[in-house]
Amino acid sequence: MKCRRCGRKAIEKLKAYGIALCSECYIGFYEELVERSIRRFRVIKRGERVLACISGGKDSSAMLGVLVALSERLGFEVEALHIDLGIKGYSDKSREISKKLCEMLGVEMNLVSLEEFGFTIDGVERRKVCSACGTVKRYLMNRYARLNGFSVIATGHTSEDVITFFFKNWLSGNFSWSEKFLPRTESFDEKIVTRIRPLYDRSEKENMLYVLCRKLPFLAESCPYAPQDEWKEIVYYIEGRKPGFKRNFVLNLAKYLLEREEKRKESYGYCKLCGEVTTSDVCAFCKLVEKYKK
Amino acid sequence: MKCRRCGRKAIEKLKAYGIALCSECYIGFYEELVERSIRRFRVIKRGERVLACISGGKDSSAMLGVLVALSERLGFEVEALHIDLGIKGYSDKSREISKKLCEMLGVEMNLVSLEEFGFTIDGVERRKVCSACGTVKRYLMNRYARLNGFSVIATGHTSEDVITFFFKNWLSGNFSWSEKFLPRTESFDEKIVTRIRPLYDRSEKENMLYVLCRKLPFLAESCPYAPQDEWKEIVYYIEGRKPGFKRNFVLNLAKYLLEREEKRKESYGYCKLCGEVTTSDVCAFCKLVEKYKK
Repeated sequence: MKCRRCGRKAIEKLKAYGIALCSECYIGFYEELVERSIRRFRVIKRGERVLACISGGKDSSAMLGVLVALSERLGFEVEALHIDLGIKGYSDKSREISKKLCEMLGVEMNLVSLEEFGFTIDGVERRKVCSACGTVKRYLMNRYARLNGFSVIATGHTSEDVITFFFKNWLSGNFSWSEKFLPRTESFDEKIVTRIRPLYDRSEKENMLYVLCRKLPFLAESCPYAPQDEWKEIVYYIEGRKPGFKRNFVLNLAKYLLEREEKRKESYGYCKLCGEVTTSDVCAFCKLVEKYKK
Repeated sequence: MKCRRCGRKAIEKLKAYGIALCSECYIGFYEELVERSIRRFRVIKRGERVLACISGGKDSSAMLGVLVALSERLGFEVEALHIDLGIKGYSDKSREISKKLCEMLGVEMNLVSLEEFGFTIDGVERRKVCSACGTVKRYLMNRYARLNGFSVIATGHTSEDVITFFFKNWLSGNFSWSEKFLPRTESFDEKIVTRIRPLYDRSEKENMLYVLCRKLPFLAESCPYAPQDEWKEIVYYIEGRKPGFKRNFVLNLAKYLLEREEKRKESYGYCKLCGEVTTSDVCAFCKLVEKYKK
């Protein structure tokens, strides 16, 4: 199997695209795909300061790598943010890998520790860990980005994340989700920083290949609290039978939502404890702090 | 395994509902499910004359059986319509089974032969057969229902049909589909008869069990032109991993579309040859007649 671009030995046949590429050409191919989507969905605007949230996992490592590679040509700045969640035996490794990645890419790494707020994820009841972790990350990254003058927050969500999230929402009858399924979610209040998902239409496998080809450091083990995700397995199965399904699905999802231009209907106000945006009196983060603070 | 309702030997464990039932109790259970959906989505109104389109297959046989069973209590009339498509070695059997079914159920069977219009499905180019067959059936059933004073046309579409149709549409970026995914699609012009899908949230397996339990005749073999449907296999796979997926998916689809209440945007007019509703000058059926008429 030969590389379609240069004729050298290919490392992988990309079924969704019907081509085989070598390691070097794959790097360029992947970066072109991301650049095309950034342009198509106007994910990053010229002159913006991007805060890229990294966990040390393959997806966010790929995101930081590709953002740095594209930053000059597309005219934006990038810094990284790592949130230390205080998960024993995991967060230390996760933080060290993130540091190493930033050093290698020559990117400033900002660090926020949940501990500063009086609790860690290990202190949360087991069955509420994943939901609490989501609240914590959304809260801290938004607050950090706003207080430090970033224009947008970038997360490493993949097409698998978008599709599984879509299915779970759909099957629970929750349709007030449109913004979360878009490559760029514009801020709706001065306290909320715009969110972008530059890997919106990339797959986990594409990200993995990119970090391997570029030899970017990443943490291979997953969070000890991460549940087995049956929906993700279902999505892989469909992709296996219908190569291109994932990319096609999310691109059409974005197209559909952008055509509809549904306006945010929820009313919101500010948390009476911390002043952040919330739909109730006290925001979800402050409720966690009140409950778990030692 | 005992029947949850009467304690006798159960024939089947229904995973999506978490219960096992005997053959007799299953009949009642299935009819209750259909009745509940008919009431919930106002699929049939009191006093309506329903034209149930039957092919002789398990799904439409189940539909006719359950409609007859519910007609008195819900106050509507039912007659059947069979369309003879002229498929050699198939249409004859299909028509005979349909007749037998109608006799058994004491229902009037109306018959339309495509041959009257100068061609048959066997005369269509192989790769256009399924699309032409769809056009023919939609056209003839609408025309027949209108000319004979029926209020609604019922088809035996199942949850699998709805989901596979949804996926194919979604992945081809076609979002102007809303009405076809509803249990009842109201007429938008006096020439168009309202369409209903009473088995919208039933699965093929549920229909099969119903015709077996009631010993209703049905044609087991499928149309010689029917392609292997990979999407249907994917839907079965998901249901296997997530029992209840199919029902849940279509019920939420209906909920979503009814909440949106999207209005028909397309403009339409009347066919200059036959006068039926069309979005171009000549309707799709007349184009087929022109092309294939001997």
